[in-house]
This record gives sequence, C-alpha cells and structure tokens, in this order.
Amino acid sequence: MVTAAMARTTLCVCVCLLASQVATSHVPEKINRTIHNLLQHYIPARERFKGQPVFSRDLLGTKLEAKEVLLSAALQTYEELIQRMLKELPGDESADVRADLSYVLERVQHLRRFRFQEQDKLLEGLHTFQHIQVDNELIRSKALWELPWLYEEASSLANKRRQRRRRKAKWPRTFQTESEAH
Amino acid sequence: MVTAAMARTTLCVCVCLLASQVATSHVPEKINRTIHNLLQHYIPARERFKGQPVFSRDLLGTKLEAKEVLLSAALQTYEELIQRMLKELPGDESADVRADLSYVLERVQHLRRFRFQEQDKLLEGLHTFQHIQVDNELIRSKALWELPWLYEEASSLANKRRQRRRRKAKWPRTFQTESEAH
Repeated sequence: MVTAAMARTTLCVCVCLLASQVATSHVPEKINRTIHNLLQHYIPARERFKGQPVFSRDLLGTKLEAKEVLLSAALQTYEELIQRMLKELPGDESADVRADLSYVLERVQHLRRFRFQEQDKLLEGLHTFQHIQVDNELIRSKALWELPWLYEEASSLANKRRQRRRRKAKWPRTFQTESEAH
Repeated sequence: MVTAAMARTTLCVCVCLLASQVATSHVPEKINRTIHNLLQHYIPARERFKGQPVFSRDLLGTKLEAKEVLLSAALQTYEELIQRMLKELPGDESADVRADLSYVLERVQHLRRFRFQEQDKLLEGLHTFQHIQVDNELIRSKALWELPWLYEEASSLANKRRQRRRRKAKWPRTFQTESEAH
C-alpha cells in the first residue's frame, strides 16, 4: 500500500513539474526550429550581428501598457515583413521555405489577433490621427474648430494624472498615520 | 457682529466658487478668442461643419492610458498643422494672423512638452518600430533572428495580462469568503 501511494505521489510530482515547465514556455519549439531554417536559407550569421538590432530591447524597458502597445506594433511589422518575403519568393524556390514562412506568419497573426486586440485598436486610432491631411484647407479649418475641446480634454487629463500621482505619493504616509492612530 | 460674520461667510463662499470655477477651466480664454479670430480669417462656418470631424470623439472614448497616447498624437498633429500654416502664410498677410497662429502653436507645444512627455516617448518608439525597412534583406534577416525573444515577450505579457484579469475577476468572491470566515 505504501509503495503504491509513493508511486502515485511521484507520478503527481512529475506531472506537476512537466505542467509547470510547459506553462513557462511561451514559444513553441516549432517556431524556433522554423526560424532557424529560414535564417540558414537567407543571410549568413556574420551579417546578422552587424550594427544595431532592429527591435531595441531598451525601447521595451517601459511600463506594462506602453510595452504592450510597442509589442503590438512590432508584431504588425513582422506580419508585413513576412508577407513581403512570401510575395517576393521566386516560384521555383523550395517549397520548404514557403511553408516555413507561412507557418511563422500564421503564428504571428494568431498572437496579434487574439492577444493584442485592444492595442491594435489604439494603433488604428493613432494611424488616423497621425495621417490627417494637414495640407487640406478644409481639414485645417475643421481641426482649428475642434482644438478648444481637444485642448480641454488634454489639459484636464494631464491635471487628473498629476493629482492621482500626488495622491499615490501621499498615500503610504496617511496610511501609516492612520495605522498608528488605531 | 452677526452681520459681519454673515458678510465674511458670503465672501468666503464667493471666493471658493470663483476658485473652483477657475480650477475647472483648463482652456485659457485667450486660446478660444484667438482660435475664433483665426477661423473667421480662414474658412466660413458653413464649410467647417461638412462631413466627419477630423478628431473623432468616439476614438477618445477609451481607457485612460490609451486616451493619453491618442491625445498626445493629436497635439503632435496640431503642431505640424499650425507650423505649416505659419510657413505658408504670405509675407503681406496681416501680422495679427501670424501672431494668433504663433500663440496657439506655443500653447499646444507647451501642453505637449510639459504634460505628455511619457506618451511622446512611446510615440517615438512606435515610429521606430513602424518605419523599419522591411524591404532591406539584412534588416529582414536580423528581424527574423530577433523574433523568438520578441515572440516570447509578447506571449508572456499577454498571458500575464490574462492572469491579472482573472485574479481581479475572482478577487471580490475570495474577499467575501475570507470575510465570512473571520
């Protein structure tokens, strides 16, 4: 009986360890392998490490919300990049390269569409605001007309943020005083 | 004595009301007046209200962090728009129009630079990520090489966010159970 219980416990521990290992791995092994194949097909390693990286890690060292928006933009760039690579692939190119690129594209699209919907919506809004036709006279006049409420929104939001920060900075001291009083 | 006290109270109430009114107004009166002058100089009102607005209020109906980023982008667009208007202003144009445009530009720049620094940094990062040369072979190869860690970052962040939401959704129930237990 003791041996059977021990065996069950050992089995449970093994399953738990395996599950935790699976849970901490976010990149499917197939992606790493596929990217490795693609890199071998494209440019040799010595070229790859020249100069600055494309996606700077420093830029991503920011607070959670900003990091999510930046990662969403990076995934969007990867989608465009791989789609172009697929489009420019010669017809006689190995079917393996096409399959590899398609697989990586599918994983990137899946991650972006199912996990970064909120950030994608923000990026769409930014695109609209950043691509306003500032040369068009009617657009200029309408934009000027809309400036007072937008200025009001921006100023009040900035003030709210500052007040919130001040409250947050004060909070532990107040809390300590209250705790001491009780 | 009662009359003097009443007068003091009335004065206090008046000062408080005035102060709260000043505190809730975020747009300097001079901006509204200046924009009104500019609108009269540029296009008549009947043109101004045709079609869709330039800066959609619907887009700004989002959560605080996203709204701040959108407003920062809108202010950036205004800066570009007014700078172009100033540049294209004929030399013989009224000095008043130039002074009005310069004043509005200065207010927009001030608001953006002193209250939206954090968001501007994010917008700069986004600009870098969105303008990567996806046609350059070396950039493509380097980007592919960097994909595994970026995919890992994006997946783990998305998972963390989901876990945080689940914890938040569960929290009141747990709290209730704990309260009931004590």
